[in-house]
Formats: sequence, structure tokens, C-alpha cells
Amino acid sequence: MIPTVEWKDGVVRLLDQSQLPGRVEILDCRDYQAVANAIRELRVRGAPAIGVTAAMGIALGANAVQSTDRQEFVTAIGKIGDHLASTRPTAVNLFWAINRMKQVIELQPNLSIVELKACLVHEAEAICQEDIEMCRTMGRYGAELIQHGQTILTHCNAGALATAGYGTALGVIRAAWESGKNIEVFADETRPVLQGARLTAWELMQDGIPVTLITDNMAGTMMRQGKIHVCVVGADRIAANGDVANKIGTYSVAVLAKAHGIPFYVAAPSSTIDMDTPNGDAIPIEERSREEVLSVHGSPRIAPEDVKIVNPAFDVTPAEYVAGIITERGVFSPDDIAREFSSGR
Amino acid sequence: MIPTVEWKDGVVRLLDQSQLPGRVEILDCRDYQAVANAIRELRVRGAPAIGVTAAMGIALGANAVQSTDRQEFVTAIGKIGDHLASTRPTAVNLFWAINRMKQVIELQPNLSIVELKACLVHEAEAICQEDIEMCRTMGRYGAELIQHGQTILTHCNAGALATAGYGTALGVIRAAWESGKNIEVFADETRPVLQGARLTAWELMQDGIPVTLITDNMAGTMMRQGKIHVCVVGADRIAANGDVANKIGTYSVAVLAKAHGIPFYVAAPSSTIDMDTPNGDAIPIEERSREEVLSVHGSPRIAPEDVKIVNPAFDVTPAEYVAGIITERGVFSPDDIAREFSSGR
Repeated sequence: MIPTVEWKDGVVRLLDQSQLPGRVEILDCRDYQAVANAIRELRVRGAPAIGVTAAMGIALGANAVQSTDRQEFVTAIGKIGDHLASTRPTAVNLFWAINRMKQVIELQPNLSIVELKACLVHEAEAICQEDIEMCRTMGRYGAELIQHGQTILTHCNAGALATAGYGTALGVIRAAWESGKNIEVFADETRPVLQGARLTAWELMQDGIPVTLITDNMAGTMMRQGKIHVCVVGADRIAANGDVANKIGTYSVAVLAKAHGIPFYVAAPSSTIDMDTPNGDAIPIEERSREEVLSVHGSPRIAPEDVKIVNPAFDVTPAEYVAGIITERGVFSPDDIAREFSSGR
Repeated sequence: MIPTVEWKDGVVRLLDQSQLPGRVEILDCRDYQAVANAIRELRVRGAPAIGVTAAMGIALGANAVQSTDRQEFVTAIGKIGDHLASTRPTAVNLFWAINRMKQVIELQPNLSIVELKACLVHEAEAICQEDIEMCRTMGRYGAELIQHGQTILTHCNAGALATAGYGTALGVIRAAWESGKNIEVFADETRPVLQGARLTAWELMQDGIPVTLITDNMAGTMMRQGKIHVCVVGADRIAANGDVANKIGTYSVAVLAKAHGIPFYVAAPSSTIDMDTPNGDAIPIEERSREEVLSVHGSPRIAPEDVKIVNPAFDVTPAEYVAGIITERGVFSPDDIAREFSSGR
């Protein structure tokens, strides 16, 4: 499978997800502004993938800095980081990755600029590699929660395409499948941008995992008909109290799951857990363009041009709806997140 | 406003709803097959509107029968009725209207074929007129349930476009608005066919009623944010026990409403109540084409071509979720439907 994001010969290569599944196109980003644009335009999306991409964006920006003065270099990296951080407000992995890149410089006061540039590339590639490994570990923990013969509902795309590879929620599903469990998946199409239809269905079909595509509003009735046994989704930010921000519609899935006695799990690496955000109310929710609602995947306008529209890209699912948070350290009750992750990552 | 359906000079004129809101086109149906096709292709939709249109289809078909033999005429009408009845299985108003048209012939054994043809046209026009009147009466009853300053969530289109005029759920909203209450509406876009975006938003904006369009998966979070005070939807069939079949996604809205303590009302004329269907499990649910999910309002394909898809056009909301059923006879608890409507219509 084509990598979601890759550092190759001084270029950040992205699989352009805005074109999937119709076209498989690679986007070569040769400066950090192009990386920022790609994040903003959802050419790469998914909290862990955004983090990895931003880290590579820093490395790319650093390589282009001409100065050999350390202070000027630090200032330039600060500016690059701010630019990348301004792309999307909700996924905390973005800020986590930018901070981790800045720490490379802080922790190496004696290296030359040339050496620092090499270290930043190395760190970005390490973040990428660690992300894949965390997904695989998470997948093994999460797979234990899924029984042979079960059907899993997922929302949006928390797959290989949302990470450096393997996926969070889809990593759990992949690991269950790879362990020989005969499972099926229902994928919510996930309006407005249709990550479920365009990305999750595509990804699972590439792996041969049985998947049924439904519109978001079918999930409730599928649950009522007994067709869903477990829900697994990803996360863009998990607050200290276990509240989860994820793609708009996740909250509805969680409420419906609870009403039908179906366990609702969240799979996310520790870089998604934000101990500085006390609860879901403190998570900034990105409001995106009305055009995303008004036209669907290139369709003609679906509603009167001047209709009022709201378009929050994410919602918050309170901890009480979450049966467990699947991380690379194991599966935790949302109540235990603060204790487990307060000592840093 | 252009009538949804109209009998004019021996032609059934339909506002082609499949083209809205982009184009306002009138479809002239000159034979009953064209009427049946229009129903099947959703050029006219909404349970009451389907009933009225089918009645006019019978009148149109009757006018074209050449025979002057009563038995041959009855046989021909039976065939026309069967053809119209085969278009869509869930909305009971379709079968109710066809039966009512057949009864005109049964109850008039002494009329000539020429006279019967005139009676059938008259009956179809009466069904149309009664539908508008029932909507207005329903609106007055329902408006009492809505307070000044409230925001109402509706799903799909149960408006003037779903009836001969004025609407069921939107009739309630219209009546509240016309009585001077300062209300607002949230309209679910209603995938897959987007009746909320294409029709409800358009209809309400034409009347100047404030409306905000949301994707279906935003409803839960709008409720959690306290933005929704009451839900009102239409119905395609109400079973004797008060279970309600309506557009796919209605059940999710009802479950979400209950979880947030928001009253969920159903507005429908008595022709939607089917005492021959004991409960929701006995309501046939139409499964529609996968193409409706795979392409949105003329968009390029949104998912891999061979992805598995389910596309139930309706779902069933159990009576326990329904705070009240708003009819032209008043507002009833779903538990009282059987007692109130068992004596026929």
C-alpha cells in the first residue's frame, strides 16, 4: 500500500486523500507552506497523520533556512511551527508533534545548524515510524475486545490513511482480522467530507476485510436490527477527564450505541491525549467552510445558495459513553486516563 | 407557490422534485404509467403526496379506458391500481388512496362508464383538497405544542412538497410561525436523497422561516448544545400500536431526542395510520438502489464501485419514542391510536 506520508530525498510525499477513491495521486511538498496547505485542504487528514506530516513540514522548513546563526534558526523554526499550527485547531497531535520537533533543538544546544537539520529529519522519521509501531501495538490490545463473528461499526477514517500506517480504529479491526477472527465492518459514510465512504471503505476493501457502506443516518437502525456488536472510532483529542473529540457524528454514534447496549471504544495513541485540556468543553472545535455541506464530492449545489449552514468538523463525546480507550499502553477506562498519562508521554 | 400535484385539463401536473432546488420544472403526466414512473423515481414523494398523485393516476388511467362494459372497466381499473401500487411499498397512503378510488366504482353500481370517469376525477380532486385541509387542521393542533422562541429539528421533507400543500411536520411549523411565534428550524440534510437540503430548506426559505441546514450526523451534537427544543417529523405509515415508519434516520433522531429529554412528535393525516399493520415489524421497508448512496446529487462516485451497500429508504421508530402523533383529529399518544382510529377514517 502507498504510504500516507513519507520523507523521500528531501521532499514530503503525501497520498492526496482528497482525490480518493477516484484517483490515486501523490503530492510532493517541497516547502513547509505546501505541507500546511495540504493539511488545511484535507489532502492529508487524521490526527496522527497530521502530527507526522507537520513534523516533516518542520524538517522541510528547517532545511530551507539559510542562516547559520542558532538564534535566527530557532526563530525561523518558531515561525514555521506557528504556520503549521495554524492549519487546524482540534487534533492535538499537530501541536504535540511541533513541540517535539522544537525540543530537538532545545535539547541539543551544542550542535551546528547542519547537524540540527539532520536531527530534525531524523526526528520526523522517528515520529513516523513510532506512529506505525504504536498503531500495531494498539491493534493487538484492541483486537482482544473483538470476538469472532462480530460486526464493528466505525465512523470517519481512523485507518492507515489517518496515521503513518496501519491505523488506530482500523488498526484494531486489522489486527482482529489478521488474528483470524471472521469479522465484518459497517462504515458510516461520514458527511460532509465522506471519509468513511471515500477512505475507510477503500482501505478495508484493499485488505479484503468485508465492509458495508451506510449513510450516517442508518447507524441507529442497523443497531436496532442487531447488526452491530461493537463500535470503534479514532480520536482527534482526548481530554484529561476522558472526553473525546472526534469527527462530527461520533457523539451520535456513541449515544446510539449506549441506547442499544453496544460497547463504544476509542483507539488513539498517547499523542492524542492532552493533559492540558481538562475536559471536552475546553477542546477547540474547528468550524469549516459551508461549501463542504453545500456541495458533496463535486456535486451541484444541494440546497439554496443562501441557506444558513453550520459545519463543526468535530464533536465531543463525554467520557461516560466510552467503554474503553485503546492506546499503545493498553486499554483504559476514560476515568483512568489522567492517572495513566499525567506523567507525560 | 407551485402546487406539488394538480389535475389540470385531463393531465396530472407534478412539480418535479428530483430537480429541486436547482431547477423548478413541471412534469405533465398524460397516462397512468407516467404517473407510476414519477412516483418510483421520486419526482413526487412524501406519503400524502404519493396518495394524492396515485388517486389522480387512477382517474387518468380510467379516462383512457375505451370499453363501455362495466366489468371490463372494473378489470382495467384493477390493473391500473396494481401498477400504481407496485411503485413503492412503505407509504400506506398509496394503497389507501387506490382503495378509496376503487370504492367510488363499487359504491356507484348504476352509473355509466362516462359518469364513473367523471366521479373518479372528482374523487381524486377531493382527496387532494382534503389533504390540504387536513394539513392545515393538523398544523393548528401541532402549533400548540411549540412555544415562542423554540428551535425545531425536522428530518427529510414533510412539507407542502410531501403533501398536496401546506405539509404535515412543516405544516405544524408553518402554523406556529403564522401564529406569530418566533421560531427557528434545523433541517437534517437527509441522506441519501437529501430531501432536507433540497426541499425542506428551499420550502422554508420561500416562506421566510429561519432555517439552518445540518448534515444528519450533526443532530446529536446540536441537541447536546441545547440548540434543539422539539423534534417534528412526518410519517409514511403508522402501525396500530403507534410504531412509526418514516424516512431513514428518523429512528436515530428519536433515540437522540429521548437521550436529551427533547419531545419527538410525528405529524400525519389519518390516511397514514394503518390499522391492518399491528406493529412496526410488519411494515414493509423499501430497499432502494445502491446508486442513491454511491453518488450524491449527481456527484462522481463517492466510494469504490463494488463496495457493499444497504439502502433502506425508511426505518421504524417504536411508539415508546413518540411523545405525540399530531393528526387532523388532534394530538394523540401513540398508545391511543388504535382506540381512536380503529373505527375507520
